[in-house]
This record gives sequence, structure tokens and C-alpha cells, in this order.
Amino acid sequence: MRAEIISVGTEILLGEITDTNSQYLAARLPAIGIDLYHQSTVGDNLARLSEAIERGLARSDVLIITGGLGPTDDDLTREAIADVLGETMFVDSEAENRLRAFFTARGVSFPERNVKQTMLIPSATAIPNPRGTAPGWWVEKNDKYIVAMPGPPAEMQRMWEHEVEPKLAQLGGAGVLVSRVLKTIGVGESHIDEMIAPLLNSANPSIGVYAKPDGVHIRLAAKADFQEAAWVLIAPVEEEARRILGTIIWGADNDTLEGVVGDMLDARGLTLATMESCTSGLLASTITDVTGAAQYYKGGFVAYSTQMKMGLGVSADIIEQHGAISAEVAGAMAAAARRDLDANYGIGITGIAGNDEVEGKPPGTMHIAVAGEFGADNISYTFYQGRQATKRRAVTTALFLLRRTLLAQAG
Amino acid sequence: MRAEIISVGTEILLGEITDTNSQYLAARLPAIGIDLYHQSTVGDNLARLSEAIERGLARSDVLIITGGLGPTDDDLTREAIADVLGETMFVDSEAENRLRAFFTARGVSFPERNVKQTMLIPSATAIPNPRGTAPGWWVEKNDKYIVAMPGPPAEMQRMWEHEVEPKLAQLGGAGVLVSRVLKTIGVGESHIDEMIAPLLNSANPSIGVYAKPDGVHIRLAAKADFQEAAWVLIAPVEEEARRILGTIIWGADNDTLEGVVGDMLDARGLTLATMESCTSGLLASTITDVTGAAQYYKGGFVAYSTQMKMGLGVSADIIEQHGAISAEVAGAMAAAARRDLDANYGIGITGIAGNDEVEGKPPGTMHIAVAGEFGADNISYTFYQGRQATKRRAVTTALFLLRRTLLAQAG
Repeated sequence: MRAEIISVGTEILLGEITDTNSQYLAARLPAIGIDLYHQSTVGDNLARLSEAIERGLARSDVLIITGGLGPTDDDLTREAIADVLGETMFVDSEAENRLRAFFTARGVSFPERNVKQTMLIPSATAIPNPRGTAPGWWVEKNDKYIVAMPGPPAEMQRMWEHEVEPKLAQLGGAGVLVSRVLKTIGVGESHIDEMIAPLLNSANPSIGVYAKPDGVHIRLAAKADFQEAAWVLIAPVEEEARRILGTIIWGADNDTLEGVVGDMLDARGLTLATMESCTSGLLASTITDVTGAAQYYKGGFVAYSTQMKMGLGVSADIIEQHGAISAEVAGAMAAAARRDLDANYGIGITGIAGNDEVEGKPPGTMHIAVAGEFGADNISYTFYQGRQATKRRAVTTALFLLRRTLLAQAG
Repeated sequence: MRAEIISVGTEILLGEITDTNSQYLAARLPAIGIDLYHQSTVGDNLARLSEAIERGLARSDVLIITGGLGPTDDDLTREAIADVLGETMFVDSEAENRLRAFFTARGVSFPERNVKQTMLIPSATAIPNPRGTAPGWWVEKNDKYIVAMPGPPAEMQRMWEHEVEPKLAQLGGAGVLVSRVLKTIGVGESHIDEMIAPLLNSANPSIGVYAKPDGVHIRLAAKADFQEAAWVLIAPVEEEARRILGTIIWGADNDTLEGVVGDMLDARGLTLATMESCTSGLLASTITDVTGAAQYYKGGFVAYSTQMKMGLGVSADIIEQHGAISAEVAGAMAAAARRDLDANYGIGITGIAGNDEVEGKPPGTMHIAVAGEFGADNISYTFYQGRQATKRRAVTTALFLLRRTLLAQAG
């Protein structure tokens, strides 16, 4: 069964609001056996909206439309559906009563223009919307289905979960899609591609390789009649990918690097402290995005100035000799954080996140160190992608380095 | 001039990633006089992608494509464009040299499959991409334009701003839409609506009021033949809105609260230090997202444990008496940060960002304090929206509190 999403709203085409509904719906469809081949956005324009619906009906079985169900003149989704199907709208008295009651319950007089929201066509039934004034439309005609839902995400999501998804799941019938994402770090996209080349011919599960901010992801997606059968298809391919890639894989699905590293620390009863310069607290903030981080994270310093670094025990000699942006200073910061907060591991980061040279070093210069009882390890690189992405990459690299250290210590 | 955006990627249609590129691009087009009538998403499928490009060329003047420029077999944007235009791809040796140099600079051997990213067709020229391996394509044929850019937002945005937008702006021509966004904080959306009610009838500029994470935004949008004429329409309405709202407005357009507060500190030669518990470095990281923050930001502490707070000078008595999550401790943290780092102002934050009760206090409990020579000021509230949003709101409130303090001190 093939579906298509149409988002309606000039505001979206002007970039004034984000269309989060499309992603929400896209993520829900695979599990009920419905394939999404097209998504499109059209403005509040009757001709273009009708054209989009007509094309959708020609190439898809189910059209899911969000937006354009409000009470004003530029809300045109009902009109466009009626137009394409050649049907005439009429007031649904039951829906009208519900809507009048909705306003009465809030002590607000009923704006007569809202009667528009109670209209139907012969092929449509109203879908209740307890969170707003616009009922949805469920339309069946010529073996095609059209679902129209309101644009506000809270209204749309409730309607989808309680009313629409259960009905569509019954139509879906044959075939569900499930997926497993394996997350790697430390090896580039093309090299991962080469390593798992023997698996890439697989059609079911299909395999995709994607570069992400937290490393390269490998996505295995299997189709089958039932979820259990799809997982059976995924299992041997996943096993082989895990065998080939080993510890290059750090997690799966919704795992985060900070969560995985946190679990490693927690399981061994180890603690961590940080001292950051250019990332300026982003590492600390990321580490504590994990529930229970207080078990292993002892705290950190945002040592933005050389003076503060020295006050915390980074020696003036090292700074003088190598500059504040150096692998040596990163190491001294990691050691100082560990010592000051009495932690098993310390992480130090110093680099250039802004777009100006510092100490004659280019933007994106980055030095990251981990210190522990074993001594120290560090990574240095230069890669500038703007302040935010540069900070984010440094944080990811720091977590990668700590994971590498913890793996080595375990072995 | 009529444009259309095509986002390419099966991942988007599976709901696995959000297509933020479309909104970014949609928001940039009005100012260069280009109308966006359609946006659509297609998967990594040659037939459907070619079909989308063909339809786009039939109804639009400019096609803006993002995604599908990676090195792997399922990256098909180049192939689809070549297909629709009936042209044959060849290796662009200049681009190949650039790409080989990119890998060499990073000490990584060149994966031969990446040669694919250096291909062109006769109608296309390569658009440089200093942030990644995939150059873009600028295609001109039969008075139509196709721009293909890589999917990763950091790469796409740089390419758009530096290479594509300036060229498209020259093509644009008659009729532009410009907008001014006034940003407020501390007053709710409906109250703002009431205050500026006399302005809301304006048709050109049109006026919209939107609740955002950093306060309520008021958007004035004017249409005219040229940018200058549109700004003349906006000026009197903006002036009146500024007169009504006064210091409730903290900035405009791309201003950030951290930038505005940083400018206030910088202009008066004042300095700032922070001590954070539940936000755990996010305030420090946000403050230093501003270029030049080193001028006024002396550094900070992520005092995640009670022990660390005490080590930094927060008295055990205060913690004992009021609990670690209290206005009194926030005040003591602000004072300690200020004292330890010898700054004019200190900010302290303590609260609950996780979804469990602490000290019998509910999730979302938040205490924020500013300390200075004048004494201290603070804000406390309880509002839980999940960890990330709760941390973000606390950071915004801390910056709002510092701004309020600085305004009061100036007066």
C-alpha cells in the first residue's frame, strides 16, 4: 500500500514554520506496512492544492493531508478535495453540534465562520478532534483513501494515534518494514562501505550507509508480512556486520555516544571530570543529558581564559612553551580536572571554535586529551565547519576518545 | 521568478531525519524576490527523482535540490539531472584535484569511489564545498536553472550563502518581500497581541505574533518592487511597535539573547562568571557562542555535585537549611562564581532537569540568581517540558535575568 503526504500552508513555504508533521507521519508509516514514496508541500492556493491531490490520487493509494482545515478563507483543504472528487459540500449537523458545544464549554460565543469546519462531502466522514475546532476528514472513493487532519501538531498527533492509524493499519495488510541502525565512529563513510561491501548486495534487508555528526550509521531495513519475520531477516546480516566491524560499532538505534560511554563508566564504578576551553561547557552539558549521569560525572570547569586554566593547576611553563592551544595543554587540563575533582578520568579540550586564528593556528584546530591512572591519550585535528558544528565535533571526538580509552583499559 | 525545492533521501521519507534544509531555504528566498510554490521530498530512487526534476522544470524557473550527492550508489541526484537533461557525465579534473587534496590534508587515503563526487555534465559547473567532499552543481539550460547542494546542513548553508544566493539574487528581478522580526521577552503572546492591537490591521507590512523558545516574536513583512521601498513601508510600523513595547523588545532579526547581553557587558567593560548545576555547562556554552565572548566571560563551573558546590564556597549551612535546589543556593552559587573568578557578575543555576523528584521537589523546579556589587536578584519557577527544553528555558531565563539586572543598573 502506497501513501503520500501533502502538507498545506503558505507559512511553510515562506520558511516561517517547520513542518514537523511530515517527519512524524513518515516515521509512523513503516510499522503499519504502508510505503511512503512522496511528500510535498503546497501553499494556501486552491488550484495548486487541487493539482497536488489529483496527482497524489493518480500515483498513491492513500493521501495524508495536514493543514488547511482552519475556519478562515485561506484554509482550502476541504474545498480542494471536494473539487477533485467532483462532490458538493454540506453542513454536517452532528459535527456542528459538537463544535458549538466545544465553544460553549469554554464560555466563548460561536464564530459563525467556524460552521465551515463542520462541512462534509458524501464520500467523507468526520474524524473527531478533542484538541481543537477542526474535525478531520476520512474519505473513501474508488479504492483510494484521503485522510485530512489539522495542522497543529498536538491536534494532528492525537487524531493520528487514536483515529487514523488504527484504521489504516487494517487496510495496510501485507508487509511491514522494520529497521536496525548500527552506529560506528572512527572510520569514514567510504571505508565503512568497503568493509561491508559483501553485505551491500542484500535486497531484504536493504542496507544504507550514512555519515552523521556522531559517526557513520549503517541502516538495515527488512520487509516482511509480520514484524517477527522482518527481524528474522535482519538478524544474520546484523550479526555479520557486527563481526566485520567489531568495536567500530558503538551502539544501535536510539543509543547516544554519551549514554554508551556513561554506561561503561557506571558499570565499572568509575568517575569522570572535565575541563573545557573552546567547547565551553558543551561537553559537560552533553554528558549530563543522560539520566543518572550524577553517578559517574563529578563536574567540570569551563576554563575559558588562560588565567583560569593556570588557577586550576595547568602549569604556566607548559602554556608558555606550547601555547594555550596545544596537545600538551589539553593533557594538563585533563590531568588537572581529574586531580581537582578526585575522578578516575579527566577530559581536557582546547582549540579554536571561532573563525579567527589564535596563536597563529587556524580555526578548527582542536586538541583533546583523556587522563587516567594509566597515563594519557589524545587526539588532535584541524577541521572548521562553523562554531556550532566545530564545538559539536570536538564533544563527539572527546566521547570517542574516552570510549577508546575505556575499551583499551578493559582489554 | 518561481522556484521549487526538492529534498532527496529515503531517510527523510522514513522519518529518520528531519528535513531542516527546506525550511532554511524557504526562509531565504523571499528577500531575493524568488517565489516558492512547491516543495517535495523523494527517496533515493532514480525514476522518481528524475520524474520530480522533470515536473519541476515544467512548472518552475529554478529547481533547488538538496541531498543525494554522497559517494555511494544510492546517491543519485547527479545521475537524475543528467538523465532528465539527456547529458553524459564526465570527471571534472579540477574538482578531482580539490577532493584528493581534501583527503590528503586530513591524512586519509582517497577512496576511489569518491571520484563520483567530481563528475559534471556539460551544462553544469561545480560549486565549491569547503566543508565537505561533495561539490554542488550549478546547471543552466533552456532558461531554467538547477542548483544541487549536499544534504548536510552545515555544508549546504555555507554553499547557499557564499555561492548560490548571490547568483540567484541577480536573476530574481521584480517584487521582493522583506521582513523585520522584533524579539521580546518577559510578556506572554496574548498580552503582546493586546498591546500592539492598533497595529494589527496593517496589510502591508503584514504583522504576525509568534511564541518562540526565546520569547515572543513580532514579524513585520512588507512587499514592494525593491528592497528600499519595502523598508520604507516597515519603518513607521516598526517605530510604533518599539514605542509601545520599549525594553520588552530585546533584539531584532538574527539577534540572540546571549549576543545582546554580551554586547551590554562588553560596552560597559563588565565581566561575567557562571556556576551551573542542572544546566551543566549549557549556559556557559551558550554565552560563548558569541564571537568575542572572551572579552567579558571569565569562565564557569559545572558544579554537578553538592560536594563540588561546597568546595567552591557554597556554604554547607545554606545547603542544609534550604536544600541544594533552592533560591538561596542559586544565590550562593552566583556569589561564589563571581568571587572565585573575580568577575563583576555571577550567575548561579540549580534545579531539576531530569524527570524525577529531588528533595521532594518536582521536575522542572528551577532557581536562577544573578549576583553583583549591587547585591542579588533571582527568578524561580516550575515548568517541566523534558530535559532538553527545561535546560534551554533555564539558560534563556538566566540571560533574561542578567539583562534585567544590567538595564536596572544602567538606569
